[in-house]
Amino acid sequence: MITLYDLAGARDDCRFSPNCWPVRMALLHKGLPFETVPWRFTEKDRIAFSDQGAVPVLVDGDRAVVEKWVIAEYLEDVYPDRPSLFGGLRGRAVAHFVTNWTVSAVTLGAIRLILSDIFNVLHEKDKAYFRQSREKRFGMALEDVTKDRDTRVDEFRRALQPLRLSLGRAPFLCGDSPAWADYVAFGPFQWARSVSCFPLLKPDDPVHAWRARMTGLFDGAANKVHVLEH
Amino acid sequence: MITLYDLAGARDDCRFSPNCWPVRMALLHKGLPFETVPWRFTEKDRIAFSDQGAVPVLVDGDRAVVEKWVIAEYLEDVYPDRPSLFGGLRGRAVAHFVTNWTVSAVTLGAIRLILSDIFNVLHEKDKAYFRQSREKRFGMALEDVTKDRDTRVDEFRRALQPLRLSLGRAPFLCGDSPAWADYVAFGPFQWARSVSCFPLLKPDDPVHAWRARMTGLFDGAANKVHVLEH
Repeated sequence: MITLYDLAGARDDCRFSPNCWPVRMALLHKGLPFETVPWRFTEKDRIAFSDQGAVPVLVDGDRAVVEKWVIAEYLEDVYPDRPSLFGGLRGRAVAHFVTNWTVSAVTLGAIRLILSDIFNVLHEKDKAYFRQSREKRFGMALEDVTKDRDTRVDEFRRALQPLRLSLGRAPFLCGDSPAWADYVAFGPFQWARSVSCFPLLKPDDPVHAWRARMTGLFDGAANKVHVLEH
Repeated sequence: MITLYDLAGARDDCRFSPNCWPVRMALLHKGLPFETVPWRFTEKDRIAFSDQGAVPVLVDGDRAVVEKWVIAEYLEDVYPDRPSLFGGLRGRAVAHFVTNWTVSAVTLGAIRLILSDIFNVLHEKDKAYFRQSREKRFGMALEDVTKDRDTRVDEFRRALQPLRLSLGRAPFLCGDSPAWADYVAFGPFQWARSVSCFPLLKPDDPVHAWRARMTGLFDGAANKVHVLEH
């Protein structure tokens, strides 16, 4: 049995990490049995065995693997007979590029639109840590990071243009069926819908329809946790 | 024999289109014999047979194919026994994403840094057309589009982060050897070095080293045309 340490909020079923969701989807894609363990930011001691302090941490037997891309490669290499996440070495290399793009364009773009909402879903024991560490990183109060988000959301939406154009070609970024590039790009959208009602996407955006397709995968896995309405 | 209509400047050997270069590299990758025909913006009549007015236009026997991505898929499908540009259907889908990203992040980012330099390499018969059409598009004089480029180049360089991170993993975006995703991302860099001395990249940027690797491919094809020093 594989165990995934998964970031959680006050509610055990609020699983909002943009980095854990791609791993969860990858495990479902591979058809591997796994359980998730809710974990909070301040529970560093519970993952000290992984020699670092962030999730996702995947434990497979006596092996601990950390960081979403490293975990994706691990699953592909250790379970090669299961459905491929990448489609060959060239597909793997370009999937890495999409992983990088997701962090740059989607996660780092969206964080300035939803940061203050994250605070509201956190477990009490994480709130002081989160406020202090994020306010230091951004150099301002959480509420100030997002206060003019209505005027900045268009820029975020424009940055999704490469994804939008791909979805004009096929239902998924990976073509007719989803794989790692879809799962990783979906991560920050599932993060946002877990913590915020702020409309990152317009209803007529092809990315909006893709997000709905992604939430329907694997028997609606992304809707079996606590999410806010959009 | 395949013919590629290729955008040229005043010099026949100034071949500066960011959209034609990926096609040229794809033909070399496939090992297909081809010739290029220098073409200028105002020679719409010479490609009227393609039912549109832009290059690349690829003529293969009695077939004319236009637009770089369409041409890439054409070459992959019609010459499947030659080295693959994509690596399977999933790799093809994700290569389309990289094509979209290149236009959004690289070409549209760089055009505001080099537009006025393009004017200087054009054939006399293209100059009025280019100035008029581009000044209408940008709503200002060519020289005004680029005048504060020194203050904007850092933003362009930051947008290359997904490519930069990929090049920390492997020598090419596609892994150990280049393919379409590399060729398409290289297009705007070859465009820039064909028309401008403006330093888009810092010498210590991994993207700079990748660009040098790309210019060395296929017996230095990208250095056999007229380029400016960087």
